[in-house]
Formats: sequence, C-alpha cells, structure tokens
Amino acid sequence: MSEVSSSATIAAHARARLADATTPLIRNAWYVVALSDEVTRTPIARDAMETSLVLYRSEDGQAVALQNRCCHRSFPLAHGSLEGDAIRCGYHGLLYGRDGRCIEIPMQDRIPSHLRLRAYPLIERAPFVWAWFGAPDTPDGSLLPHPSWLGAPDWDMYIGYLPISASYVHMHENLLDLSHLSFLHPRTFGTPEYARAPVELDIQGEDIQVWRHVECQLPDIYAVPLQWQGCRARRSSGSRFVAPGLHVNTGILRNLELPDAAQDPQPTIRVAQIITPIDRDHLHYWFAGCRNFARGRPDIDDFMRGAQIKAFTEDQFAMEQIARMQRIDSHAPFVEMHIPTDAAGLAMRRHLLALAAREGA
Amino acid sequence: MSEVSSSATIAAHARARLADATTPLIRNAWYVVALSDEVTRTPIARDAMETSLVLYRSEDGQAVALQNRCCHRSFPLAHGSLEGDAIRCGYHGLLYGRDGRCIEIPMQDRIPSHLRLRAYPLIERAPFVWAWFGAPDTPDGSLLPHPSWLGAPDWDMYIGYLPISASYVHMHENLLDLSHLSFLHPRTFGTPEYARAPVELDIQGEDIQVWRHVECQLPDIYAVPLQWQGCRARRSSGSRFVAPGLHVNTGILRNLELPDAAQDPQPTIRVAQIITPIDRDHLHYWFAGCRNFARGRPDIDDFMRGAQIKAFTEDQFAMEQIARMQRIDSHAPFVEMHIPTDAAGLAMRRHLLALAAREGA
Amino acid sequence: MSEVSSSATIAAHARARLADATTPLIRNAWYVVALSDEVTRTPIARDAMETSLVLYRSEDGQAVALQNRCCHRSFPLAHGSLEGDAIRCGYHGLLYGRDGRCIEIPMQDRIPSHLRLRAYPLIERAPFVWAWFGAPDTPDGSLLPHPSWLGAPDWDMYIGYLPISASYVHMHENLLDLSHLSFLHPRTFGTPEYARAPVELDIQGEDIQVWRHVECQLPDIYAVPLQWQGCRARRSSGSRFVAPGLHVNTGILRNLELPDAAQDPQPTIRVAQIITPIDRDHLHYWFAGCRNFARGRPDIDDFMRGAQIKAFTEDQFAMEQIARMQRIDSHAPFVEMHIPTDAAGLAMRRHLLALAAREGA
Repeated sequence: MSEVSSSATIAAHARARLADATTPLIRNAWYVVALSDEVTRTPIARDAMETSLVLYRSEDGQAVALQNRCCHRSFPLAHGSLEGDAIRCGYHGLLYGRDGRCIEIPMQDRIPSHLRLRAYPLIERAPFVWAWFGAPDTPDGSLLPHPSWLGAPDWDMYIGYLPISASYVHMHENLLDLSHLSFLHPRTFGTPEYARAPVELDIQGEDIQVWRHVECQLPDIYAVPLQWQGCRARRSSGSRFVAPGLHVNTGILRNLELPDAAQDPQPTIRVAQIITPIDRDHLHYWFAGCRNFARGRPDIDDFMRGAQIKAFTEDQFAMEQIARMQRIDSHAPFVEMHIPTDAAGLAMRRHLLALAAREGA
Repeated sequence: MSEVSSSATIAAHARARLADATTPLIRNAWYVVALSDEVTRTPIARDAMETSLVLYRSEDGQAVALQNRCCHRSFPLAHGSLEGDAIRCGYHGLLYGRDGRCIEIPMQDRIPSHLRLRAYPLIERAPFVWAWFGAPDTPDGSLLPHPSWLGAPDWDMYIGYLPISASYVHMHENLLDLSHLSFLHPRTFGTPEYARAPVELDIQGEDIQVWRHVECQLPDIYAVPLQWQGCRARRSSGSRFVAPGLHVNTGILRNLELPDAAQDPQPTIRVAQIITPIDRDHLHYWFAGCRNFARGRPDIDDFMRGAQIKAFTEDQFAMEQIARMQRIDSHAPFVEMHIPTDAAGLAMRRHLLALAAREGA
Repeated sequence: MSEVSSSATIAAHARARLADATTPLIRNAWYVVALSDEVTRTPIARDAMETSLVLYRSEDGQAVALQNRCCHRSFPLAHGSLEGDAIRCGYHGLLYGRDGRCIEIPMQDRIPSHLRLRAYPLIERAPFVWAWFGAPDTPDGSLLPHPSWLGAPDWDMYIGYLPISASYVHMHENLLDLSHLSFLHPRTFGTPEYARAPVELDIQGEDIQVWRHVECQLPDIYAVPLQWQGCRARRSSGSRFVAPGLHVNTGILRNLELPDAAQDPQPTIRVAQIITPIDRDHLHYWFAGCRNFARGRPDIDDFMRGAQIKAFTEDQFAMEQIARMQRIDSHAPFVEMHIPTDAAGLAMRRHLLALAAREGA
C-alpha cells in the first residue's frame, strides 16, 4: 500500500479520460435485479440497464428474467399471467417459455422461431438475484461479484433500498472517498476525524481499495449495538470497488478502552452496496449490512437499518443535487477539478471507461 | 372474403414499410374535434393534430374552429370573448371574424390583409363536430367518414370519452385485432372463444374489415340489456378501419336458444370509435355506442356506457404501457414481430404510411 | 416625441430581425439576484442566467455571490456552511474564500490555483442585490440600471414577486405595450380607454419609452389610496425599457375635479419591474411599487401590493399561455404579425438581438 498519490499523479489523472454520467453502461457484467423475496409466482416488472424485465419464479423455484416487452406488439409481459413455467401476454395471448421462446400463438399452429424474448441468465445468491446483461449465451459466472459472506449464516444481516436519480458512476465515486463522512454525514455516521485521516490506497489492476483509520468516539449506529457509547475507539473503514454492480464498505471497530480479549472476534461490519443502473441517470441502490456482533438481535437489525437509511438518504440527496447542478449548467463548459483523495475514484472511472470502450469496440 | 392470410403473406407484411408512432399525421382528412354540445357561445380551446384550436358557435348556431394562437402575439383566443360572430383576443384586443380575418385593431383603421387566423372547415353531424385539417380552401366533403346511422333516430346512442397517451396508429391496430378481447378484456367484454375464432379478412383497397364469429355466453354488457344472461349465443364482431379519424366496430348478436322470430330485428350494436390525434403520442378517444335493442332506456344507456368505459380503460392502459415500453427501449433496436391476426392491422399501417408519403411529396 | 409609427415602419420592423425566446441571454449586464433581506449568514441557492449561484453575506455585511457548483464534484455550496467569510462544501469539505478561491482542502497542504469558483461582482442597492454576469474582472458599473428613486426615503415602497415560466423577451414586450391593460386587466388595473389611447413613442438609441394619456375613472388600486373613487381623472402611463434586467412603469395621476393646488405633488407611482432570466424559458419577476402619496401607510402598502399581485398574475398567465402556444406549434412555421402599438417592443427586441449578436461575436 502507498500513501495517497502526489499532486503530479492527480494532474495525470485529470488528463486521463474518465467515465461519467454520459458513458455507456457496462453490459458484460452482473447486476442485482431483485431481492429473492420479490421474485414469486406473480410476475413483476423491473427496469434495469436501459430496458424493462419481467421477473417470476418457475414451478421448480428458479428465478426467471425475460425481456418485458412482448416481441409482437410491445405490451409488458409483467401484466400477463403464468401458465406453469411459461408466461402468457395479457394483450393477444402469445405464450413464452422460460427460455423466452414463443411456444403458443392462439389460432396458429406454426410458431416462427424468431418469435422469442431475450432471456437474461440469472444467478440467485440469497438474498439477491443477479442478472447478466451481456450476450445471453455467454454469461461469465467468474464475473459474479457476490461475496461469500453476503447472506452467509455467520453474519447477521439487514437490507435496505433507495432509488436514486443520478449516475451510477457518481455513486461509486461517492463510496470510494469517505472523506465525505465528515461533511455530508456529520449527524449520522461521520465524525470530524475522517476528513484528515490518512488514506491507504491499494489499486491492483481492477481491484480498487481505500482504507482510512481514525480514532474517535463511534457514531451511534455502531456504538449503540456494541454498547460502546462514549468510549474511545479505533475505526478502520475500507471502500472497495468490486464490479460495476457492487461496492463493499468494511468497518473494523476496536475499543481502545477494552482489552483485546474482550473484543474477539473483532467487531466488523461489511456493507454490500448494490448499484444497478436503471439508465445513465437513475439507479437502484440496495444495501445489505452484515455484522459479526450483536448477533441474533432483530431489534439491532432494525436500529442499524434505520440509521443507515437516514445516512444513505444524505448520499441520495447529494447525488441528486449533483445531477441537478450538471443539468442547470449543461450548456456551459465545466472542468471538474480533482484532489488527492479522488485517486481511487479516478482509477475506478478510468476502469469503467476502459470497459465501456472495450464493449463499444 | 378469405381466411386469414398465410405466414408467407405475413412475412411480406413484415418487410413492407408500416406506419408507426413516428409517422407524420395525415392532414387531408376529417377528425372529430368536439361533441356538438361542447361548442357553445363560450369559446373553448381544443388541442388536435399538433395544434390548438378555439371552438365556438356563431349567433346563427354554426360551429366555428379557428387557430387558437393569435397571429399577433400568440395569446390563445379561447381566453378572449365573443362579439357577435367575431372573437376578440384577450391580450391586445384584435378582433377576428368567423372566417379568421382580423376585422379590428384597436387604435388603428387599416387592417393588413395578412392578419388572419387559419380557419378550419367544419361539418357538424350530431353528436360530433368534424374538422378538416388539410388545405383550408379545399375541404373534401367526400372524405367525411360520418356514417349515416351515427346519431340517426332509429338507433339508441350513448357517448363516452377517454384521453389516451399513445399513438393513434396503435389504437387503430388495437381495434383491428379483436383476438385481444380474450386476454385484455376477460373481465369486461371478452370471452375465451375469441382468441381462437377464425378471422374473416376483407381488404378492398383502403377499406379494411375483419370479422369473427364465436358461440359463447354473452358478457354482461350485452346479456343484461337483452336479458339473455346464461343463454348460448352467437356473437359476430366486425372491425372496420374507415378513415384515420374513425373506426367502426359492429356486434351482431343471436340467441341460439330463441327462435329467429323472437329476435327480429337482429340485436346489433355499432360503436363509432372516434380517434383524433392530439399529436403523435396522444389522442382523443370518443366512442358512440348505437343499438337497435332495449330502446328508449336511459338506464341501459348508462349501464352500457359504464361497462364500455371500464373495458376501454383497459385499452387505454395497454396503449400507454406499450408507449412506455417503446420509450424505455428507445435507444435499442427492436424488431416488431407479426402474426397472422395482424394482417388487417398491417394493411391499415401500410395504408397510413402511403397516405403520409403522398402528403409529404 | 413622435406619434406611433406608420404601417410602413411596422412592415420594416417585421423584416428586421428580432430577439425572441431562442435568443442567447445578454451577459454583459446587471440583473437582480435577490432582495437584500434574503442575503444573510445562511447561504441560499439562486438560479439565474442559466446557472446556479450561492448567495450569502460576509461578516462585514457584504453580499457575496459565487458559483453554486463546487469545482471538485459539483455539489451545491448552498448546502455547505460558512466559516467567517468563507464557505465550506458540504460534501468533501473544500473551503472557498469570498473571492471564490479555494483556501483549504482537508488532508492537503498545497492548494492548486485553478481550484476556484467563479465569483459574481455584486452591487447592492437596497432593497435589491444586483449581479454582473459578464466577465468577472470587468464589471461595468455604468450599466447598473438601479434608478435613484428606487428605495429612496421620499418614496413609499412595497415589493412583490412572481416566478414566470416564459421568456424575458416576451415579458419586456408585454410591459411596453400597455394597450393590453384594457383586455388582459379589465378587472384589475385596466380601463377601456387604454386600448384606443394615442401612443407617444420615444426611442433614443437604446432608451425606449412609450406614454399614453387617458381620462377615466381610476381603478381601485389608485382610487382607493387617493380616496378618488368615482372622480374623473387623467392617468398618464409611461413604459420604459431601461436594461435587460429592468423595466420602469410610471403612472401620473391628476384629479380633474380637484384644483391643482390640492394635488401637489402630483400623485405619481413608479414601478420597478425587475426581470431576471432564469433561463430562456423562465424568469424571476420582482416588482417594487413606489408612490409619493398616501405616505407612511403600511395598510396602503398591503392594499396596493395585493392589487398588483392580482394584476401581475394575469400577466403571468398570459406569458405562460403564450409559451404553451409556441410549444404546441413548435413544429409548424408561424409568422408573428406586428401592429403599430408594437413599435416600442420591436425596437426593444432589435436592441436585444443586437446586444446578443455583439456578445456572440
């Protein structure tokens, strides 16, 4: 790991080309399209990645995602009905199998083979359903970003959701520079020490991580579940860009007033920040907070979810205000300036631009 | 009449160029702009055919339609006031005659001859007022699609209205393929037999008709007024594209459990489906249901209007959902697929495209 | 002064090129961005001239206007906080001085000189704060349109505000042709005599004035404060285009039933019509009504403000309806026709177009 990069490096970043709200979305990737619980025998529509999907569950319990737009007259299949594993359009009755092929046209025996919906390969890892938006016949399971601890029984979990009217690029960048905790979140989960904490940057090819370590009194979101209110603590916060559809934030908490033996395992929280572009200007944001402390406590789940919703609503506000500033000034030239704590975000944005360029080629 | 065309024909249709939501509107045609009752001595604004009209009635009872936008400073004349047959702008007081000519400018004696509003030729056939949107001095009365039975005393009539945020092309296509009755309208006026009923297609140049005959228990909208609940009946349904602004659906009902003599005249319903584009993505939809049974019964008017509003609200939903699907996917290529029951719709769409091409030339 | 120009002149006007809603805004000018009272130690956002400003007051009481968009990640500074005369971004904590220079970056010692916000030169003349939108280092104080009487102690003043979704060009034109008083405002401050009153037009280069003199019973807005209800009066109304951001309307009132000695000083009202484009289709509209009669009467302030809000809401309606007509017809050619009372408005629109052309060169 190196200390935060020099101004010279930053200047180079500024010259580099960077993904932003106008960059085409990355299609050869997995994105969460639903919570497992949302996918049932009642079809639902879900917009994601500049299209609309219909989601349902087959009789054997498999999640299915098809193009929502009927290939005949564009009626949304989510307003149709299931017949076994197939879905019938609610307009003229075309019936599609779970692979998207049309298998019945009322009043017609022959089914042209081109009558088919795009089917989206899915991998379900509770509590999430991931969909592949690249070429349907070549889903790359090795790119699935779902971490092993997410949904694992040795971590207690709560889940929340917010829709955000902003670019997913800015949302990733937001999560990679936690210096904003001191300014955007002072009344939720930030503390003043964050702004000036040294940054450990670790960029290994596409793996982009940042760590900060501060000594502070923990904010309530952690202090209350740990019963550490008023104690001096060390808080290590890591941000990691994992994939276009996933970011992971880790918090490792050490009570400086307690012996190490009294805090084993070290209290840790991992937040899966699930970011699914709806289009270039809107995103779904699910977050799953996983902890190894205060286990088996639904009241603590509720407390932490509530505190996190409150804090992430501040991020939602920031993202949407930024989008507004960009719209108002859209006719005028604007040169975005960079500072050293942007190094991770800039690496991520160069990476996304490279992915987009590769897909466009 | 021929049975529904073959797949080969359909494939040819698919290659043919078809009108859709992007096709320019057809201007050399008559469109309903108001119910007669709406046109009074109080001017109203009415948007139609990508413009705004002001409608009022002259002192001798004639309906008048002028360009709503004052040719001076664009204020809508509908917010002005009538003086005899003339209308005075509510902004700077220019006075226009019913022919659109400016006849008074306060504080000025000479009136330049170019100060005139476009006047739209009208033909009023109760209960509707039709306007000509082609060149004002060459209205072609022979193109007026108003059928003789519409508003005639030997048919009882009820009228309804819905605004629809969709292309009028899709609305015509919707009405030409009644196989959707089984799927979109199963709880209103569809029955399951519709989907598989043979289709009689009759295309004579610009006259496009489709007929279907099913044996069924009639839905309540017809069974209740006829007191035929639970009876086996034959229902013949015809769809006819008459003009860009008019579609006619006919239902002929025969009770299979009653002698013919007991159902003379044969119970028949004709619905004038009045379709007036507001612009390419919005339309006015008036419908006038005319019947030769259960005569002189205002309660039956109300019952049938209510049932039809409920069913047509399902069409409104379908049209608007389709428009939504098209918007979401607007950046991606989409090849609309056709099936045999589309034959009439495809003929209609080729016809509209040919009309638009002729007007553009 | 000359009588209203001839039709030939008007035809020449029509051929001349005129500013309209599509013309670029004039930047080398002063526009009101706030009431003095709005600018405090709590920063506020204010959109104007196709951008967003943050406004606050320094510790020594000076008004400050900076670019609202942080030059780092575009967060609006209005959601940040003041530290002395500087403002700290509420996202990552960059601190900017009142001149716009970044003076602190958390966790970094060196501050690149290009990290700065645009600062807008201000001149405060109570009750208004004027901003210069041309090049920041060359504000031209000689162009400040604030008249000496506006806010002066020998005139009683009330202030009102309306946002209007229309072009500022149309708003200026509206104010220059008061013949609309008879038609748009007959129930507020217009009287029928206006429409046919002779117009005195006085165009001296960029100084464009129009006067009308009518004999009438004054509308309540003036008659009530003067206690002249029912009296015959002479009302002289002047409209003057002063600058892109200011229009002044003057009313001089003479009671024809009272001796001159009983009305000295001559009752006069001057209305500063403050017009600040938000963008080409929206504007801020402040008005400050100043009178030399019924002095020291807050109840009269309230009465006149209320009457004026009611009347100006009619202008707001007209401006927004015109914008709507222009939108509906945006695909079709429309030739705006001119009449003699437009002469002042046409001169103003030629002038605005010339200013825009000069700035574009």
